Amino acid sequence: SGFVHIKNPHLDSMEEDILYHLDLGTKTHNLPAMFGDIKVNSRCRSEAASPGPAGLSSPSSHSSAASLLRMLPWGTGFGCSAKGLNDQGSLGREHGMGIPSISIMLHELIKLLHHARCRDVTIIRIGTSGGLGIKAGSVVITDTAVDSSFRPRFEQMVLDDVVVRSTELDKDLAEELLACSKEIPDFPTLIGHTMCTYDFYEGQGRLDGALCSFSSEKKLEYLTRAYDAGVRNIEMESTAFAALCGLCGLKGES
Amino acid sequence: SGFVHIKNPHLDSMEEDILYHLDLGTKTHNLPAMFGDIKVNSRCRSEAASPGPAGLSSPSSHSSAASLLRMLPWGTGFGCSAKGLNDQGSLGREHGMGIPSISIMLHELIKLLHHARCRDVTIIRIGTSGGLGIKAGSVVITDTAVDSSFRPRFEQMVLDDVVVRSTELDKDLAEELLACSKEIPDFPTLIGHTMCTYDFYEGQGRLDGALCSFSSEKKLEYLTRAYDAGVRNIEMESTAFAALCGLCGLKGES
Repeated sequence: SGFVHIKNPHLDSMEEDILYHLDLGTKTHNLPAMFGDIKVNSRCRSEAASPGPAGLSSPSSHSSAASLLRMLPWGTGFGCSAKGLNDQGSLGREHGMGIPSISIMLHELIKLLHHARCRDVTIIRIGTSGGLGIKAGSVVITDTAVDSSFRPRFEQMVLDDVVVRSTELDKDLAEELLACSKEIPDFPTLIGHTMCTYDFYEGQGRLDGALCSFSSEKKLEYLTRAYDAGVRNIEMESTAFAALCGLCGLKGES
Repeated sequence: SGFVHIKNPHLDSMEEDILYHLDLGTKTHNLPAMFGDIKVNSRCRSEAASPGPAGLSSPSSHSSAASLLRMLPWGTGFGCSAKGLNDQGSLGREHGMGIPSISIMLHELIKLLHHARCRDVTIIRIGTSGGLGIKAGSVVITDTAVDSSFRPRFEQMVLDDVVVRSTELDKDLAEELLACSKEIPDFPTLIGHTMCTYDFYEGQGRLDGALCSFSSEKKLEYLTRAYDAGVRNIEMESTAFAALCGLCGLKGES
């Protein structure tokens, strides 16, 4: 059917669903009318390519990419104000930094797509990351998100149990995005694994945090092992993104 | 000496330290002149009490609390714009949602305090949380932050190793804050454990996420066990906050 999969038997019996961090609700907003046309999937050319490699690899990429997308009204959680609209069937959303933050946004975004009865939705996540053994300014299209031990898995806490989830992303979509990139001059793009860490300083081998207990040799040894395992960039959200997209039937790419 | 402890032997040999997410640097800014007078510690009365219980337990608390504090110029990471200043020797900072996000802010804030040669600094974190078996609107002063298995520990990834850190907070400061609260009418305040989770929906027993695999009975059983272990509120940053404050010699309270 192409609808988003919500795997929560409690949701149907709820009188109202409030999307806390998006400032939206099923009683206060007509979500199908506001968001029912969202697809995002046919826009990979304009969305992924237009900001350019400089835009994608610098902090300003957020606003460049955002200007192409219909933005959600922000709630209180992410600290941003509302952005502009367009009519391209696309929707954009900031997600903060780290797995806990993006998870909150994705739970509520996925419920929004469900309530709005959207079909055949593709999610493309665009953001900065640290490249590993690749040319500065390159765009990495993720085939598989891996954890800090290079495993294609995401350990989700459900109450006090650990549940392991797959982090494979859509291979066809990755190839489609790569093909788009080839049409643009000087747009270095590759497909590779993306490593997702829980920490920016000690977790990614940075030598300039408030705490650092490892040598530069140990750091290099770790990053070399990551490269040899197929990792081409490092960030802090991709495993949760891949796991949630996979479970909810969304074609996802990061 | 009262100085902040930086435990990073690499930092002294660096020509410049750029605090990426704060948009500050040791070469571009005179940090001792800008921030050398920061203490925060003698302000518990005005800072903790003034926003009032409604302010502390609602999203608007961020702006109420912020108005009392000297705010840092924001960098790109946290998506906020600059806030006002005051002359009370205090400094405020938004930290985003979740452990990875607050860790980035704390690493850079701790380095800022170090470079500015601040002494005897106290950090008080103020934010919303979910109360557990307590009156709505109550303020919980954390004695110990615990993980989702109610253990007073924080598991930090350092490269691909797990390092376990203590999450005890300053007991005297907690008592001092509690004493402040008693001077204000209708300001329900208590000292208790704060549970820190990696996830807002599945991790905190919410029945209204995009995914939910547990029954309401299982949720209640989990929250009852948490209460019996001394947990009085749930949020997503306190274990990392407590661990970093403890290691860096900062008197911290959450």
